[in-house]
Amino acid sequence: MKKLDNDLLLRVIEGRSAERTPIWIMRQAGRYLPEYMAIRAQHDFLTMCRTPELSSEVTIQPVDIVGVDAAIIFSDILVLPEAMGMHLVVEEGKGGPRFTNPIRNRESLSSVHDADCGKGLEYLSDAIRLTVERLNGRVPLIGFSGSPWTLFAYMVEGKGGEFVHARAMLYEDPSTAHRLLEILARNAVSYLKMQREAGADVVQIFDTWAGALPPALFEEFSLRYIKEIVRSLQPEVPVIVFSKGANYSLEAIGSIGASAVGVDWTIPIGEAARRANNVVQGNLDPALLFAGSEAIRRGAEAVLEQAPSGKHIFNLGHGIMPGTPVANVRALVDFVKSWRAN
Amino acid sequence: MKKLDNDLLLRVIEGRSAERTPIWIMRQAGRYLPEYMAIRAQHDFLTMCRTPELSSEVTIQPVDIVGVDAAIIFSDILVLPEAMGMHLVVEEGKGGPRFTNPIRNRESLSSVHDADCGKGLEYLSDAIRLTVERLNGRVPLIGFSGSPWTLFAYMVEGKGGEFVHARAMLYEDPSTAHRLLEILARNAVSYLKMQREAGADVVQIFDTWAGALPPALFEEFSLRYIKEIVRSLQPEVPVIVFSKGANYSLEAIGSIGASAVGVDWTIPIGEAARRANNVVQGNLDPALLFAGSEAIRRGAEAVLEQAPSGKHIFNLGHGIMPGTPVANVRALVDFVKSWRAN
Repeated sequence: MKKLDNDLLLRVIEGRSAERTPIWIMRQAGRYLPEYMAIRAQHDFLTMCRTPELSSEVTIQPVDIVGVDAAIIFSDILVLPEAMGMHLVVEEGKGGPRFTNPIRNRESLSSVHDADCGKGLEYLSDAIRLTVERLNGRVPLIGFSGSPWTLFAYMVEGKGGEFVHARAMLYEDPSTAHRLLEILARNAVSYLKMQREAGADVVQIFDTWAGALPPALFEEFSLRYIKEIVRSLQPEVPVIVFSKGANYSLEAIGSIGASAVGVDWTIPIGEAARRANNVVQGNLDPALLFAGSEAIRRGAEAVLEQAPSGKHIFNLGHGIMPGTPVANVRALVDFVKSWRAN
Repeated sequence: MKKLDNDLLLRVIEGRSAERTPIWIMRQAGRYLPEYMAIRAQHDFLTMCRTPELSSEVTIQPVDIVGVDAAIIFSDILVLPEAMGMHLVVEEGKGGPRFTNPIRNRESLSSVHDADCGKGLEYLSDAIRLTVERLNGRVPLIGFSGSPWTLFAYMVEGKGGEFVHARAMLYEDPSTAHRLLEILARNAVSYLKMQREAGADVVQIFDTWAGALPPALFEEFSLRYIKEIVRSLQPEVPVIVFSKGANYSLEAIGSIGASAVGVDWTIPIGEAARRANNVVQGNLDPALLFAGSEAIRRGAEAVLEQAPSGKHIFNLGHGIMPGTPVANVRALVDFVKSWRAN
């Protein structure tokens, strides 16, 4: 494997010295970029996920266009449950992806099987290999998975939203919930190992719906399984864990042995770093990128000044929003790259 | 005014002794009730808000059907900005209410004027008077308003969602933001006083989008104006303040002098009560009402046992969801009514 020209992200994650704070942006390969939209206009979302040539192309776009310090493979968290037997449908303008066979009870668990990381998800390994080849060592590549709870939420509910049926199952039938979460944790491990073997340098676990749970349920039904995954992967595979909306449990999240902890924008990052006692990633308010360059500079500086020096990966506190002006994203990246701790 | 037969809510709010914990449910006059849906099938949402006869009828339904200890007037937080010059449109199946003339800069503030609580909002006073007459002292009636920030979020964005333009204005043009928030706070005071004069016993301020803000912005742009409203209304008008998703600032929320503090389901209510140091209202996970009666009983008991005795109003941690089984709501209300602290 070619040595990386820019290994800042890995240096921070491994606790080695880095001359400045690296930056990447959640959903950086996405709808704010005209170059992404041009490809998206010709192909539906799932086709893009399943076509290594297309996935690889949009993965590299933000490296070229806005200059981020890492690429993250273009894919979707729901392709793993799809490979496990869920019927995934994404229809244009119909309110997000959905599963037509939601799991609502113990019996319907039988429709779920272990994913075949060879045949069923080969397109993702191929996309990663192609992307690593094309990046040619410019920046590291990040792979990812949804957390067991976040995947569970979609699989039980069948669609996005408030996930009331998924949450209700935790109260009503915890043993079935634990059974499905165990299956998901096992599959997430294989899935992330596959991405590592194909060439991903780091992986991130997106626990996007953590904040739908009260703290006790989060720790029992979400964090516990993320911890299992981290234990199965570390130290060979560095793992970033991002449980959005679960700041109430930052101490617990920080203690599971992840390489870094993602932080949303509803907490000062200095406080998050102290509480998690770990490398932190985040946490600029994505709405700031709709303000002017002076406001962006001030906001970014506040994050950089509060974050622990050398233990911080700059990012937004949530995915970048469609409609974000590209010039503002570039201004943010340039500013973070130019900033040095005093 | 007729003396109330059931004044448990007022007793808890005023710090007087109450023989048991009162319960009401956010959105209790809503889409989970077949009796509500029958009326809704014949009238659009805004017509229901603007017709005292209809508004009053659905307001009283949950008192009759599920037996709650308070009624809350059926209305919508967006009718206040509408009376201030915003063009409100609610189209069926088109993703929630919207304003066709969003405020995006200082100039467009000129389209906003003080609401005429006489003429422009007479239907709400009429609905409250009619409801008080029909309730005939059975339970207290709650009035409400959106918080200045939550109304601002809709007025600037024009619609629900992530409110990126509203959040961006706080960073980009804080003086215009403060100007609009001042106007909203002043109007919310008149609006809530009007509801009190028409017969509401208590009012609640819904700060539904508090959680979209980082703590510093929440305290500067949301809580500050809620505090102004509370100061203008208390002690004549008891005020419950519910800033959803802002548990990071519970100490500050608890200190503004409100009669009670609403608590969402993402924090144990005992911890919330200690941190807010105030009467608390909440905080059962609304998803629990989709589970079985045994799970509901356990969950409700956990809330009741943790909450400070005599300083607690039972409620959900967020509005009741469409599709919630009515029998479960009734079981919850019955259980809370039967429960006594040891």
